[in-house]
Amino acid sequence: MSATTSTKGRVLLAYSGGLDTSCILAWLIEQGYEVMCYMANVGQEEDFDAAVIKAKGCGATKVFVEDLQREFVEELIYPAVQANTIYEGIYLLGTSLARPVIARRQMEIAARENCQYVSHGCTGKGNDQVRFELAYYALKPDIKVIAPWRIPEFYERFAGRKDLLAFAAEKNIPVVQTAAKPWSTDENLFHISYEAGILEDPDVTPPKDMWKLTVDPEDAPNTPERITIEFTKGKPTKVINGAKQVTDGLEIFLYLNQLARQHGIGRLDIVENRFIGIKSRGCYETPAGTILRVAHMDIEGLTLDRQVRNLRDQFVTPQYSNILYNGMYFSPEAEFLLSSIEASQKTVNGEVRLKLYKGNVIVEGRSSKTNNLYDMEESSMDVQGGFSPLDSEGFIKIQSIRLKKWGVNQKLV
Amino acid sequence: MSATTSTKGRVLLAYSGGLDTSCILAWLIEQGYEVMCYMANVGQEEDFDAAVIKAKGCGATKVFVEDLQREFVEELIYPAVQANTIYEGIYLLGTSLARPVIARRQMEIAARENCQYVSHGCTGKGNDQVRFELAYYALKPDIKVIAPWRIPEFYERFAGRKDLLAFAAEKNIPVVQTAAKPWSTDENLFHISYEAGILEDPDVTPPKDMWKLTVDPEDAPNTPERITIEFTKGKPTKVINGAKQVTDGLEIFLYLNQLARQHGIGRLDIVENRFIGIKSRGCYETPAGTILRVAHMDIEGLTLDRQVRNLRDQFVTPQYSNILYNGMYFSPEAEFLLSSIEASQKTVNGEVRLKLYKGNVIVEGRSSKTNNLYDMEESSMDVQGGFSPLDSEGFIKIQSIRLKKWGVNQKLV
Amino acid sequence: MSATTSTKGRVLLAYSGGLDTSCILAWLIEQGYEVMCYMANVGQEEDFDAAVIKAKGCGATKVFVEDLQREFVEELIYPAVQANTIYEGIYLLGTSLARPVIARRQMEIAARENCQYVSHGCTGKGNDQVRFELAYYALKPDIKVIAPWRIPEFYERFAGRKDLLAFAAEKNIPVVQTAAKPWSTDENLFHISYEAGILEDPDVTPPKDMWKLTVDPEDAPNTPERITIEFTKGKPTKVINGAKQVTDGLEIFLYLNQLARQHGIGRLDIVENRFIGIKSRGCYETPAGTILRVAHMDIEGLTLDRQVRNLRDQFVTPQYSNILYNGMYFSPEAEFLLSSIEASQKTVNGEVRLKLYKGNVIVEGRSSKTNNLYDMEESSMDVQGGFSPLDSEGFIKIQSIRLKKWGVNQKLV
Amino acid sequence: MSATTSTKGRVLLAYSGGLDTSCILAWLIEQGYEVMCYMANVGQEEDFDAAVIKAKGCGATKVFVEDLQREFVEELIYPAVQANTIYEGIYLLGTSLARPVIARRQMEIAARENCQYVSHGCTGKGNDQVRFELAYYALKPDIKVIAPWRIPEFYERFAGRKDLLAFAAEKNIPVVQTAAKPWSTDENLFHISYEAGILEDPDVTPPKDMWKLTVDPEDAPNTPERITIEFTKGKPTKVINGAKQVTDGLEIFLYLNQLARQHGIGRLDIVENRFIGIKSRGCYETPAGTILRVAHMDIEGLTLDRQVRNLRDQFVTPQYSNILYNGMYFSPEAEFLLSSIEASQKTVNGEVRLKLYKGNVIVEGRSSKTNNLYDMEESSMDVQGGFSPLDSEGFIKIQSIRLKKWGVNQKLV
Repeated sequence: MSATTSTKGRVLLAYSGGLDTSCILAWLIEQGYEVMCYMANVGQEEDFDAAVIKAKGCGATKVFVEDLQREFVEELIYPAVQANTIYEGIYLLGTSLARPVIARRQMEIAARENCQYVSHGCTGKGNDQVRFELAYYALKPDIKVIAPWRIPEFYERFAGRKDLLAFAAEKNIPVVQTAAKPWSTDENLFHISYEAGILEDPDVTPPKDMWKLTVDPEDAPNTPERITIEFTKGKPTKVINGAKQVTDGLEIFLYLNQLARQHGIGRLDIVENRFIGIKSRGCYETPAGTILRVAHMDIEGLTLDRQVRNLRDQFVTPQYSNILYNGMYFSPEAEFLLSSIEASQKTVNGEVRLKLYKGNVIVEGRSSKTNNLYDMEESSMDVQGGFSPLDSEGFIKIQSIRLKKWGVNQKLV
Repeated sequence: MSATTSTKGRVLLAYSGGLDTSCILAWLIEQGYEVMCYMANVGQEEDFDAAVIKAKGCGATKVFVEDLQREFVEELIYPAVQANTIYEGIYLLGTSLARPVIARRQMEIAARENCQYVSHGCTGKGNDQVRFELAYYALKPDIKVIAPWRIPEFYERFAGRKDLLAFAAEKNIPVVQTAAKPWSTDENLFHISYEAGILEDPDVTPPKDMWKLTVDPEDAPNTPERITIEFTKGKPTKVINGAKQVTDGLEIFLYLNQLARQHGIGRLDIVENRFIGIKSRGCYETPAGTILRVAHMDIEGLTLDRQVRNLRDQFVTPQYSNILYNGMYFSPEAEFLLSSIEASQKTVNGEVRLKLYKGNVIVEGRSSKTNNLYDMEESSMDVQGGFSPLDSEGFIKIQSIRLKKWGVNQKLV
Repeated sequence: MSATTSTKGRVLLAYSGGLDTSCILAWLIEQGYEVMCYMANVGQEEDFDAAVIKAKGCGATKVFVEDLQREFVEELIYPAVQANTIYEGIYLLGTSLARPVIARRQMEIAARENCQYVSHGCTGKGNDQVRFELAYYALKPDIKVIAPWRIPEFYERFAGRKDLLAFAAEKNIPVVQTAAKPWSTDENLFHISYEAGILEDPDVTPPKDMWKLTVDPEDAPNTPERITIEFTKGKPTKVINGAKQVTDGLEIFLYLNQLARQHGIGRLDIVENRFIGIKSRGCYETPAGTILRVAHMDIEGLTLDRQVRNLRDQFVTPQYSNILYNGMYFSPEAEFLLSSIEASQKTVNGEVRLKLYKGNVIVEGRSSKTNNLYDMEESSMDVQGGFSPLDSEGFIKIQSIRLKKWGVNQKLV
Repeated sequence: MSATTSTKGRVLLAYSGGLDTSCILAWLIEQGYEVMCYMANVGQEEDFDAAVIKAKGCGATKVFVEDLQREFVEELIYPAVQANTIYEGIYLLGTSLARPVIARRQMEIAARENCQYVSHGCTGKGNDQVRFELAYYALKPDIKVIAPWRIPEFYERFAGRKDLLAFAAEKNIPVVQTAAKPWSTDENLFHISYEAGILEDPDVTPPKDMWKLTVDPEDAPNTPERITIEFTKGKPTKVINGAKQVTDGLEIFLYLNQLARQHGIGRLDIVENRFIGIKSRGCYETPAGTILRVAHMDIEGLTLDRQVRNLRDQFVTPQYSNILYNGMYFSPEAEFLLSSIEASQKTVNGEVRLKLYKGNVIVEGRSSKTNNLYDMEESSMDVQGGFSPLDSEGFIKIQSIRLKKWGVNQKLV
């Protein structure tokens, strides 16, 4: 089918190379659209060349493969490290963090290539449809979105994998004959997620061979490895491992990934709450992200003022985490919070020494050349520094005024 | 010296059996007080019988040894488990949690024995003086506190260990001839802390032989151990390990301690911010507490409503953690928050299956018989349950209204 | 048309007696439903008898008029007074507060009368559709909702008032020949709202004759009136005005309404943010609610602990206000917060003396017989009470430790 | 006494010209200090020339009178307007806001004039000692503070006003023969406070002649006055009153003060919680500040995104208000929050039309030329704009998923 027969306009489809989006591609063409395909390289394991050939074979008039790894690490991941973002106290937000860079480039290409429509292969029950589309609408408020898995005509026609395979055969879409895994995954350089299928029973232990990125802690080396991470304004700027030093932002992340994977670091298995209010079980591997979280929180202990930390922890971290999870990265509130994340990290400079061992990230020490908030003498129990013990007495007495008033009424003992 | 010569009144001294509080005991008698000694058994390793003999030898008119382990676990530790309390994102508050039960019994005995004064051996720079005294004043607003390490006459006379040893010799206080460790510790059944001495340099790695409660993860068994913890309204009510079942509140905690210690679980090394505004380095071992935190957060994923969790996480957890750390357990705000902790846990019922392995606490599955918030069908990406994909479309469109308005002004792409 | 011809099931319609819901009533019957009508008396000015006749004339098989004033005041309004609820710092939530009692009774009747459906006349752009339906679904998860103003078949047929009038004529629905006001209103005993029409331009000053409940402050009495309000656990339990005393919960509220209306108290004109993300201009009159807010906040100053107040203000008040505004009253998070509202008010007992004058609610004094948190001697600048000035010195010195460390780096002067 | 005899060093005394600080001045000289005096003009009613003569007569070697009005308005007051700062929901922080500019200039002069010491006349029970000294220590960590009212030698010698008068006579300090008011005041261009004395009984109504800045609302003009205030990035940049326009930052504030005072705007009478934990009764007049609060909150309704407002309201406003009240303006956390206040106000541009009448500040309309967040068409209940009613249906259905799950368990009806 040639683009000249398309009558409904031009669509930029977020394409993965898999069965679903290939069928969506063919179906959109069947519906009368011209379709261009867009693939974002955010560090996932993928044969992009094969996917380009496949997309063109299916009738895509253009295929764009975009390497977004650097902006993913520098613009999304590192601010998240600075903010210690975490969802529901556990999940490091690996899928959410990739969506903004993917959606942004898609909108840029849609604008440049005069696509009136964009399309994606997300289901109608998950978080990703929300994340992609809220980003689309914020970035290009006049964009029109085609979400086939929410169109009855589409989802009723393709009720099961069998229907998709039949359609693929009809449209000459090549299908790789691999046994489908009994779960879904989403991978990028920050993490991989596993959900659905056998994992929908939250009491089923994931099979050992599910985990892809990290070595099983039980199979990890018996000898620990020691590294040093340097932070500058809360972002990692150097990793030292013996004689080896890595200083480039993207390279630092990839190198930490390599180490963390070897040592079985970053596995998670949780039940979380999706934005739309459904509870969902997910398993995750976040190797470098787990190391960076431990290290960053540790260097903040040494270098960040208590009250700034306290305010940031209570207000910025949970709110920014929720914003990311809910797909609101392109929003006035995210812009607002990002400015305060940056403001919080001015003093977060120093080095953390870590031991990596069978799933553990163990802090062995930390130091900072530029920071004077930690004062060994003042901290010492043996040395009298900075203030007199009598000051503590006054401090306690004043703090007790309110409690005594309350205690009189309580008659607690 | 007999009590009859005391002219200044009666003191109830929090006594540890060590050099410091023995000298304080003798000094208080020298100052003209009658002194009774009080020892709280909160699960620390201690020869209470020897300490009683020593206190009496030093001139204490009475010595009270109180077993507070059960109330410590049931009244302080389990509500903290329910609330996922944690200080500065890392520290599990082991010292803070013991202080309220210790102070409460001390006030009860002071009231019963007509002691006008209480005394303790805390230094003038730490958190513990604050925690003990705020509790004292709230519980018994008219109590008078003697804190020798804040009294110039005392701390100038006993400027170093040598001075204490000399005074001990003078007063015939027996001194155990052990080499002093180059750090201080505080131990109870929840944790042990290490601070001061060589640890004051935050870049010094703690020596391997410092860690007392837990096996080094590197020396822990090569074979993982699997257990199941049952929670009822957010509190652990059963531990199952093969054929073994433990159901008593205190026994559960002690058994989890035993397992966690074997598997090297619960070590921490951090720089934290003391209440009085000083940064301080501390190392901690919190074996059972670490297992319970992982397990409780996991069962909440399955059984706690998203918004209740979100409100509790943002408002109750950090505030209650700070209250504990700052010694405000006996306060109207703690009472206020404790009522909301209880209100939050009504649905937190179920079982978590864990694997313990070389420092790791790995969740392998969870289930709940009484909870229906998790709905496999609704959660499933394959099954259409509870709502139509078109609803998601409306949800997204409504969420985008505000973002589009903002996006129009931003011209982001 | 008789109910026997209805084939689609039974609907309980929230009926107002006006043109819109009368047309909806007739239309539902036309669609093949049996329709019962439900009117909630929440204190609005309404001819209920005439409405019942009208509904029956239109074909309703039953009409229920329910007096919900007492539960509205005691179950919804007074807890909101306790919590100082306010939306966006200004709006006292008068519409939101009535919705839960209205929806709850509707669900009770729907259950009792075996109605499979409920219906309402809310538009598709406002907050009320959300509030009613979220309440319906929480209270009776299997209920089916018919919202005609969101059904294309309906809203396309009735595109303007003219179409409704034509339909009314066709169905013999009596229409009161009053000139439609150029705005919409929602009235109950707590407030009246005005929006839409000429008010959609946020720079149009509402005409003097729009305001219905309160006298214009400029026309209010030149002589102030003085009253005393007694609070018990944060709820008003007595109003005293000279010799007159009112002690019944509902009567207190109605009497305060009467006084406030006379003195021009409680007018507001704001631009607010609807739940669905649209900005909207509304004008409101909340007479008694405004007096109670001033009085309750004042008595809390005297009787509520600082930290409890601080926690409640930051966490409970804004969250519970948003929950009400967004229609989530029947939710686990509202239940959770309501328990903490109650916990916060134990000590809020006492009397506030007020002067009402031309729109102003002026506090003239307050007292509490049962409360000892306020201590004149301690508070006095002249008398030395409770603590020594030296304690303040220590308090300040300890507070300054952290600031000095920071200041050294800043070189601020 | 000449400065040459001073042996203890040089003190910069915050001098008011009144009896207390004149006695402190003489006493410090008596103690052997050289004393310079510093008076800050923050808009209070004061005869500075007379005070300079008096200070020199008492032995001050230099006297500095500094006009800080502009920096007070532009650096402290306007950011507080932007943040809608308010303490305990009621008090506009007029004393707290002046302290930072006063303390900063004092430290600058102390540094320039090589004063090792500063001194002030604050009592040992209030907030101001804390505010001044925390600012001193943050700005100049090595400064030494002499607080005579906390020095036993001083406060025991001057136990009452009689003792001060006797000392004044001895030192030839001229005393103005005015009857002392039965309360204390603190005045600046933002507000005046009244506390202590007869006000210590919280049920005593302040006498009519206490109020100094504002006309009694009952005596205010019977004719309302209408003005327009323009905001740019949340700060007032123009006031229009008929033909009159004021555009200078300081002039705007002073002009609003004049109007507000005439119309009886800004009186308050509250019981508040001091930082040190004591409840205290205060009366306040904050004329211009009250107008600006109403106007700024109104323009934010029109121009500020809902979520940014919500985050700012919950996190920034209460925290920054507490920071000001507690005297922590010069702190890392204030710096952190101020950056987010500025970030929040980018879109807060527009005009608010107000009516001033007998204590009331009544909004009559608002507009913004640069803002598009308010969309009359989208807001309209009559016009279909931006989204389909079906979207609302989906929005509600998705929001209900979680509530239905909960409702099933509750069996609420």
